Amino acid sequence: MAITVVGSVGLDSVETPFGAVSDALGGAVSYFALAAAHYDQVNVVAVVGDDFPADYRQQLDARRIRLEGMQTVAGKTFRWGGRYHLDMNARDTLFTDLGVFADFSPSIPQAYDGAGVVFLANIQPELQLDVLRQAGEGAKLRALDTMNLWIEIARDALTEVMRRVDVVIIAEEEARQYTGEASLRRAVRGILALGPKRLVVKQGSYGALLFDADGGYFAAPAYPLDEVRDPTGAGDSFAGGFLGYLAQRLSAGGELTANDYQRALVHGNIMGSFACEDFSVRRLLALTPDQINKRYQEFVSFTHFEGSWHNGENGNGR
Amino acid sequence: MAITVVGSVGLDSVETPFGAVSDALGGAVSYFALAAAHYDQVNVVAVVGDDFPADYRQQLDARRIRLEGMQTVAGKTFRWGGRYHLDMNARDTLFTDLGVFADFSPSIPQAYDGAGVVFLANIQPELQLDVLRQAGEGAKLRALDTMNLWIEIARDALTEVMRRVDVVIIAEEEARQYTGEASLRRAVRGILALGPKRLVVKQGSYGALLFDADGGYFAAPAYPLDEVRDPTGAGDSFAGGFLGYLAQRLSAGGELTANDYQRALVHGNIMGSFACEDFSVRRLLALTPDQINKRYQEFVSFTHFEGSWHNGENGNGR
Repeated sequence: MAITVVGSVGLDSVETPFGAVSDALGGAVSYFALAAAHYDQVNVVAVVGDDFPADYRQQLDARRIRLEGMQTVAGKTFRWGGRYHLDMNARDTLFTDLGVFADFSPSIPQAYDGAGVVFLANIQPELQLDVLRQAGEGAKLRALDTMNLWIEIARDALTEVMRRVDVVIIAEEEARQYTGEASLRRAVRGILALGPKRLVVKQGSYGALLFDADGGYFAAPAYPLDEVRDPTGAGDSFAGGFLGYLAQRLSAGGELTANDYQRALVHGNIMGSFACEDFSVRRLLALTPDQINKRYQEFVSFTHFEGSWHNGENGNGR
Repeated sequence: MAITVVGSVGLDSVETPFGAVSDALGGAVSYFALAAAHYDQVNVVAVVGDDFPADYRQQLDARRIRLEGMQTVAGKTFRWGGRYHLDMNARDTLFTDLGVFADFSPSIPQAYDGAGVVFLANIQPELQLDVLRQAGEGAKLRALDTMNLWIEIARDALTEVMRRVDVVIIAEEEARQYTGEASLRRAVRGILALGPKRLVVKQGSYGALLFDADGGYFAAPAYPLDEVRDPTGAGDSFAGGFLGYLAQRLSAGGELTANDYQRALVHGNIMGSFACEDFSVRRLLALTPDQINKRYQEFVSFTHFEGSWHNGENGNGR
């Protein structure tokens, strides 16, 4: 089932202790689409300037990714520059040039008709709302990502989007920030109370948690990488693996089960881990189905254990 | 199989956003022993001053904990003061008064003869070495914990202890600090290369990882608490659950399996989570076998998923 994704396509300049790239293909949509396309069809809604390199367009276009909704307008493509330090969980933004992204007015092309899954990547909540309206009632699954900036300056609109999606995907610190709760469990209840049926909490290099409105809970630790070369886009690739897998399940027919969501969380972690192995979207471009299968099986083996145990005969006394 | 633990018993003064305690029962050994005693016999090697409250001694003594090796000497008991902020993963030390702990010379009493498991809690590596020598060749399992201070000022002695134990239990940032590796996997290989057969990496509120010398890997996410009231002692309680479970398995006869270690990691997480639910050792004192069983079963349910999936039919092309 096709996934329509709206958000940024941009040019990233990134420095990490392992190297640097300049004007590399980036933006939430690029990572998301290249991850999700390993599972199902992706329809892009985005904007780039007339300086957007033709080979980047080709890299996207060669996959199961439709680009009719990626507008090209006169001006400069969105650019972001960042630097990571030895602890790759922290980064400094060096610059943000919005370029044509400043006036982005997303429009879902007619050709995308019937998109079953909608992913609102991290953009202004007002634009996310607009896309939800365009998608209409037909969508089978709606999910959003966001960031600290929108919690600070567009809280009401963000709340409105949260009320209208099925799944909220959010970083742990943003869940706390949005709700003002130190307890993650309380933060989770606060967000689920708005209406979404499921909440995914991203924990960076530690993995992700899945909560549902009925109190269900599932944890997927991160895949342990030998080398994190560039964590940029890991969260978007996570969302791509997560929603890509769910779209694949929806394509197979029937309703999504709790088990589908659990496996989706694992696929999210897997795609996030691949994204970190090289700069820009390189690793996602080079990825094969066999490599995905292998990492999935590894994941099963390092999280499963023979659980049966009972402490009954071992009391508290001497 | 009895566990001999050496380390600090002290009086903690702790402030968190949820309250405060003054001169409460603390120290690595108190948390470790009260957690491990839920699984098997614990033999304490420690020192307290003549100001150590009789009721604290009784709280320890009422469990499967032997105190012949807890010396009482003239002077003040070790005291520590700390303050936690809204992000409970960070704390400030307000004061450390070593008191009689400054001249601690650990001695394993004759009465503890035949201890099968030895846990070297976080103390000077030289003292850890001394205890290993006293324990002799008879021990079935030797494990150590440590801290950033010893990595900085007693690195060589710490390395020597690492060479002689079966299991190293260490916080993630300390594994990186000790090896100077940004990549956790490389840090793990660096420590395992010294000789220990297994390495447990503690990740605070995110859970724990288990690595073995053959490349085996297991991840246990943290149990998600509604309220973390006081994280003090969580790492020591983790070690208590981990080694307590292994001691219980050794008591049942036979050699420890990979599966035993995996379940031990889960029991470590469980005990760490209980410790955080109240100030000082209160929660460990009040804990029942049923509560441990229930949390263990919850843990199984939120980490297990039906794994079968294969991406074979879903290629990379259109």
